Amino acid sequence: MTLDEASKTPYTIDTEPFYLDTDNEIRMFEAAAAARLPVMLKGPTGCGKTRFIEHMAFRLKRPLITVACHEDLFASDLIGRYLLKDDETVWVDGPLTRAVRMGAICYLDEVVEARKDTTVVVHPLTDNRRTLSIDKKGEVIQAHPDFLMVISYNPGYQSVLKDLKQSTRQRFVSLSFDYPEPEDESRIVAIEGKVDHDTAARLVGLAGKIRHIREHGLTEGASTRLLIYAASLIRQGIPFKGACTAALCQPLTDDDRLQETLNDLIDDLI
Amino acid sequence: MTLDEASKTPYTIDTEPFYLDTDNEIRMFEAAAAARLPVMLKGPTGCGKTRFIEHMAFRLKRPLITVACHEDLFASDLIGRYLLKDDETVWVDGPLTRAVRMGAICYLDEVVEARKDTTVVVHPLTDNRRTLSIDKKGEVIQAHPDFLMVISYNPGYQSVLKDLKQSTRQRFVSLSFDYPEPEDESRIVAIEGKVDHDTAARLVGLAGKIRHIREHGLTEGASTRLLIYAASLIRQGIPFKGACTAALCQPLTDDDRLQETLNDLIDDLI
Amino acid sequence: MTLDEASKTPYTIDTEPFYLDTDNEIRMFEAAAAARLPVMLKGPTGCGKTRFIEHMAFRLKRPLITVACHEDLFASDLIGRYLLKDDETVWVDGPLTRAVRMGAICYLDEVVEARKDTTVVVHPLTDNRRTLSIDKKGEVIQAHPDFLMVISYNPGYQSVLKDLKQSTRQRFVSLSFDYPEPEDESRIVAIEGKVDHDTAARLVGLAGKIRHIREHGLTEGASTRLLIYAASLIRQGIPFKGACTAALCQPLTDDDRLQETLNDLIDDLI
Amino acid sequence: MTLDEASKTPYTIDTEPFYLDTDNEIRMFEAAAAARLPVMLKGPTGCGKTRFIEHMAFRLKRPLITVACHEDLFASDLIGRYLLKDDETVWVDGPLTRAVRMGAICYLDEVVEARKDTTVVVHPLTDNRRTLSIDKKGEVIQAHPDFLMVISYNPGYQSVLKDLKQSTRQRFVSLSFDYPEPEDESRIVAIEGKVDHDTAARLVGLAGKIRHIREHGLTEGASTRLLIYAASLIRQGIPFKGACTAALCQPLTDDDRLQETLNDLIDDLI
Amino acid sequence: MTLDEASKTPYTIDTEPFYLDTDNEIRMFEAAAAARLPVMLKGPTGCGKTRFIEHMAFRLKRPLITVACHEDLFASDLIGRYLLKDDETVWVDGPLTRAVRMGAICYLDEVVEARKDTTVVVHPLTDNRRTLSIDKKGEVIQAHPDFLMVISYNPGYQSVLKDLKQSTRQRFVSLSFDYPEPEDESRIVAIEGKVDHDTAARLVGLAGKIRHIREHGLTEGASTRLLIYAASLIRQGIPFKGACTAALCQPLTDDDRLQETLNDLIDDLI
Amino acid sequence: MTLDEASKTPYTIDTEPFYLDTDNEIRMFEAAAAARLPVMLKGPTGCGKTRFIEHMAFRLKRPLITVACHEDLFASDLIGRYLLKDDETVWVDGPLTRAVRMGAICYLDEVVEARKDTTVVVHPLTDNRRTLSIDKKGEVIQAHPDFLMVISYNPGYQSVLKDLKQSTRQRFVSLSFDYPEPEDESRIVAIEGKVDHDTAARLVGLAGKIRHIREHGLTEGASTRLLIYAASLIRQGIPFKGACTAALCQPLTDDDRLQETLNDLIDDLI
Repeated sequence: MTLDEASKTPYTIDTEPFYLDTDNEIRMFEAAAAARLPVMLKGPTGCGKTRFIEHMAFRLKRPLITVACHEDLFASDLIGRYLLKDDETVWVDGPLTRAVRMGAICYLDEVVEARKDTTVVVHPLTDNRRTLSIDKKGEVIQAHPDFLMVISYNPGYQSVLKDLKQSTRQRFVSLSFDYPEPEDESRIVAIEGKVDHDTAARLVGLAGKIRHIREHGLTEGASTRLLIYAASLIRQGIPFKGACTAALCQPLTDDDRLQETLNDLIDDLI
Repeated sequence: MTLDEASKTPYTIDTEPFYLDTDNEIRMFEAAAAARLPVMLKGPTGCGKTRFIEHMAFRLKRPLITVACHEDLFASDLIGRYLLKDDETVWVDGPLTRAVRMGAICYLDEVVEARKDTTVVVHPLTDNRRTLSIDKKGEVIQAHPDFLMVISYNPGYQSVLKDLKQSTRQRFVSLSFDYPEPEDESRIVAIEGKVDHDTAARLVGLAGKIRHIREHGLTEGASTRLLIYAASLIRQGIPFKGACTAALCQPLTDDDRLQETLNDLIDDLI
Repeated sequence: MTLDEASKTPYTIDTEPFYLDTDNEIRMFEAAAAARLPVMLKGPTGCGKTRFIEHMAFRLKRPLITVACHEDLFASDLIGRYLLKDDETVWVDGPLTRAVRMGAICYLDEVVEARKDTTVVVHPLTDNRRTLSIDKKGEVIQAHPDFLMVISYNPGYQSVLKDLKQSTRQRFVSLSFDYPEPEDESRIVAIEGKVDHDTAARLVGLAGKIRHIREHGLTEGASTRLLIYAASLIRQGIPFKGACTAALCQPLTDDDRLQETLNDLIDDLI
Repeated sequence: MTLDEASKTPYTIDTEPFYLDTDNEIRMFEAAAAARLPVMLKGPTGCGKTRFIEHMAFRLKRPLITVACHEDLFASDLIGRYLLKDDETVWVDGPLTRAVRMGAICYLDEVVEARKDTTVVVHPLTDNRRTLSIDKKGEVIQAHPDFLMVISYNPGYQSVLKDLKQSTRQRFVSLSFDYPEPEDESRIVAIEGKVDHDTAARLVGLAGKIRHIREHGLTEGASTRLLIYAASLIRQGIPFKGACTAALCQPLTDDDRLQETLNDLIDDLI
Repeated sequence: MTLDEASKTPYTIDTEPFYLDTDNEIRMFEAAAAARLPVMLKGPTGCGKTRFIEHMAFRLKRPLITVACHEDLFASDLIGRYLLKDDETVWVDGPLTRAVRMGAICYLDEVVEARKDTTVVVHPLTDNRRTLSIDKKGEVIQAHPDFLMVISYNPGYQSVLKDLKQSTRQRFVSLSFDYPEPEDESRIVAIEGKVDHDTAARLVGLAGKIRHIREHGLTEGASTRLLIYAASLIRQGIPFKGACTAALCQPLTDDDRLQETLNDLIDDLI
Repeated sequence: MTLDEASKTPYTIDTEPFYLDTDNEIRMFEAAAAARLPVMLKGPTGCGKTRFIEHMAFRLKRPLITVACHEDLFASDLIGRYLLKDDETVWVDGPLTRAVRMGAICYLDEVVEARKDTTVVVHPLTDNRRTLSIDKKGEVIQAHPDFLMVISYNPGYQSVLKDLKQSTRQRFVSLSFDYPEPEDESRIVAIEGKVDHDTAARLVGLAGKIRHIREHGLTEGASTRLLIYAASLIRQGIPFKGACTAALCQPLTDDDRLQETLNDLIDDLI
């Protein structure tokens, strides 16, 4: 796929991603989008934030541009750069600039991980100005009316060094996410992992117990994604216990005592 | 918008931003501007510092150039750079240089966040010299008579590492800001959030209570901006409680106990 | 070997690397590969993780591209770079990009050591997108169906600073490794070190004792690789004790008291 | 103003800056200049060090080149750089090089803030060599006989990390500065702030009290500059108390209790 | 000497460096070289590690390429770089690449001091792959059969931050070094320092005493090199005591009390 | 002075720098130079190390190239760089390379301050190899027979972070310096400061007392340079006490109590 093709289509989501509304968050997101308010999605790993934003992009029929933030991501990675191409200097828009121009949803995943100079870019896009300043081109872009800034944030991770400043936080309507209800999650695991409902329900039951012991030492519970992994292994012929060990227990922790506890939980199920 | 257009008009504020004078700060700012004294705006997030400076720019009929400072902002980001354009090296003024030349108000938002080499730029512009030295061009610019340096500063944020040196602080007349009075704030929320006065007053009442518990764990109270967000969601059909949760409570904190306290405050209101 | 040749063949493993299945990990890996699930290999130094992945690459008949991660490894080292070649700018794919295009197994050894911007590359390759974005070329590559991401991770090393985030961990099916069983290990040492089975067994017996005292001050036990080194020295005519000192004791620790303990263990064997 | 003009005139001070000798420092500076000894000015913020050096530059009829040092100031910022100009590489002297060539006073304000590679430049200019080495041009410049190196230094600021090494300190004759005597300071404030002597004296009286409580929590007292700011605001029609709050109290501290103390001091005066 | 000449000859050691085998280390090294096992030399400063490797290079008739590692040494310093030469971009092999191609011994002196990205280079050269990957050229080099990787390591220096990871350590056969026996060391000092055997023996006797008090505060004892320095000074006509002070005592420590102790040791000898 | 001229003459010292031998250090240095042993000069600030090396350069009729080291000095600053000159890339030797080629004394002042990559350059120049490797040119230079490496080092400064490694220290013959004897120092001060012997003796007497109280809080005593400064001020007509305050007391410390003690010492003298 070349750049030109990429700037036209690839951000459109063509098939409806499966998502089950749990706390009216679809309605709330639609309201925020209608009022052009930036949105922050809060919640633990793998509880469905990414899936939700894909679902909303499909629903609102807007392209979605996702950027996974990390501590070496600078503002220029978001905005764009001059590149040499066949002896010519060509400006290439970064993902944020593309979103601003085309009226996409720009989803900055785990935004606190990024370099702090991203703040200077986010602020004027999240107040009544709705502008993006490309200093290197001396250009100020007025955001497309459909442009929507969405960030995600995992409260469990934050330390003193990596925290959203109040002056940034207070620019976003915030939706809080948690794992889906058992019945909903079973449906998701059955569909995505291509297993029967019974197996899915057993996996979700196990996940519930694992999430319950979270306070006893696990930093996070098992994500829905891991349940789907376990289901996929089972579908490949791996026995239930082995699949759970490889896809649920081992990824969660390196602590031997916690592994034992997790194994006990599995054994209780068989 | 191209660079040339940008250097002429976009910094002018055409419609009067709504601002209510509370402590004679409009008069004080006019006096400082008349005496060409640099000004520092102190106060918490979202209490109206940005709105105030926009209001003053409109009132004084001067362009306003705003720079959101951050820890990767260097002096050269303020002053300008040589850029390659169609095989030619072209100098592009940074935001501060543009302000100095055109006689704009240059507003450095949260200036302590910026790199320390910005100091060398700010100092000769804030004493009787009023000059900006562009080392890369070997040029020294005498500031336009209307040029005015304004910085903002949030005392609640400051740590030992990020503090304004006395030799910088003592170059600014300082105006202290706080949240507007309830009656004033209700008017602002009603106008900007496009809700009836009653709803606005309820939101402001809630904000007052939230700001009151600030000492009990919240680092900052709810800003006026968040109240306007809540009002906007209500206008989109979201019920009062849901709007307050998404726009006021969730953005302020990740602490579960504090969320409960905040929810109780809302329930008391309904 | 030039670049062109390299991109075709050198990653193929032609002769079957010797590997003994201990905990059904071969079957589990095949299932994960069939379901296109990313895999994490956990375990101590030199217990056979690298050998296992080579064995699986042979078995699955897929090329294997290995990257030893370290704290100065950036995402661009994985993705690729523009290089000047005979006055022309030529794009050279990095190891990950090559793997993604050709459908190889990409093995990131000790991935937590790498710079955090590698995360942004790993994430979209390990969820349902399976894409690699080459920002510098404005190109988004859909991974070859045979592409498989595998990472290794040594739980004994991890500190607070160097840990896999849960949002990364929970993207991998995890297989836990430990040293092989004595009988298996003896066979490996005899074959690879080209010594008789008796000598190999004595070395493995010594290793067992060394690994046993691990809790008493050694950070890691002797790896199978070191046993093969000792065997090789013996084969070169070095006496048993000297070979063990040079290949087992001295590499493990600089602590004089621990060296004495290790020497006592050897003396017990002779 | 272009570079060429700049290298001729702009550093000359044409009108005598007002300065009142307090401890024979004018005579001492003249002696040091005559003996070509480097000079260090020690003292708190805003006590008149900059004014003194401007006065001396006028008196000695030498150009004055001032550099405000900061933690991102490198030696190359002082010495100069090659720049591209109309496709040609042109060397542009830095401020120190210009001073060395033209026989100016080079004033490095708050020199400890600068990067340590500035030391290598300062040393050979402050001993019997009096040379500046421009490595990038392979040029060694013998300083003009009138060149004089002057640095300033605020002892109150220094920490272990930011201290002048003895091998640097012991290269400078040192003059210690403090706030002017009340009568002198009143004269300065009246002249520079354009207010009557009575108002000036009241401001100076207040400053005296503020400086007195310095030990009780203020890191520095109010500078003469701030008194002039207050006077300027008063001249613009701002009442005495308001002017003192904005120009004296708020700039000095963010501590609420200290603000109250400062307010009490003002109330006592009215 | 130009580059081309350098890549042919200068690494060959033509005259046999004097070395006395003490613990069968010559035999052990030959065995490791024959089995193509990487070697680590452990021991204090100046005990003869460098001399040993020079001796072995002579003995095995292989070129020796030495790199003194330091904390700013990156992998690219070892591998090579593209350089501009007469308007052409020319690749210049780094020292490691030269060794890998020509089948030299590559000696990385004090390897823990180097940047961690050197690990990625060392690993595939020290396992059964024996390959060096030059990413910038997209080239993978199979090491010459005579290539031998040797590293040195001073256990006395190591801190938590600068330690060899077990996954690196366990790739090397390790030989432990200490100062030579008195009789051997006297012979070395007499030959290299060009003094009579009696003077050499007195110096070695002194060194023995100095090394004995090492536990009482000296971080390291006097190296053989320093003994040769003292001998050289004596040969130049400097009296014994003066030569010992300048070449043995002063280099070892700055502690006044330790200097006195060292002086007493010298006085005892005269 | 252009580069070409510079590489011929400017490092030659034409007039004999005044130096009084105190501990036979001249003879010792001559012996080390004759035996081609590297030399380290240890001692406090301003005790005459630089003067000594200038004297020895004159005496041995060798050019002297001095580099003041600092924490941003990299190996490339010592070795040299490719520079653009009139569209051509020209290699410019750094100061060390010039010294190595021309057989000069290279004096690295306060070498521990420099970046650690300088070590890699110093080591092969200070053992029997006597080579300098210019990686960027692929050139290895054999040092001129007259080349002599000299470093200085102030033991009073050293911290854990900035210490010479034993593997570096043990490569240098070390000469320890202290302030000259009173009679000698008086002669120096009289000659260099151009005052009568009586005044010089009084200054030296004062310095003796100041150095005596060093243990009571001063980090270093007054250097001979400062005594010459004081003498110069006196010669310009400044009274004794004022000259001592400005040239001796103020440069030494910012501590008020220590200043009083120093003033008392002066008053005792008058």
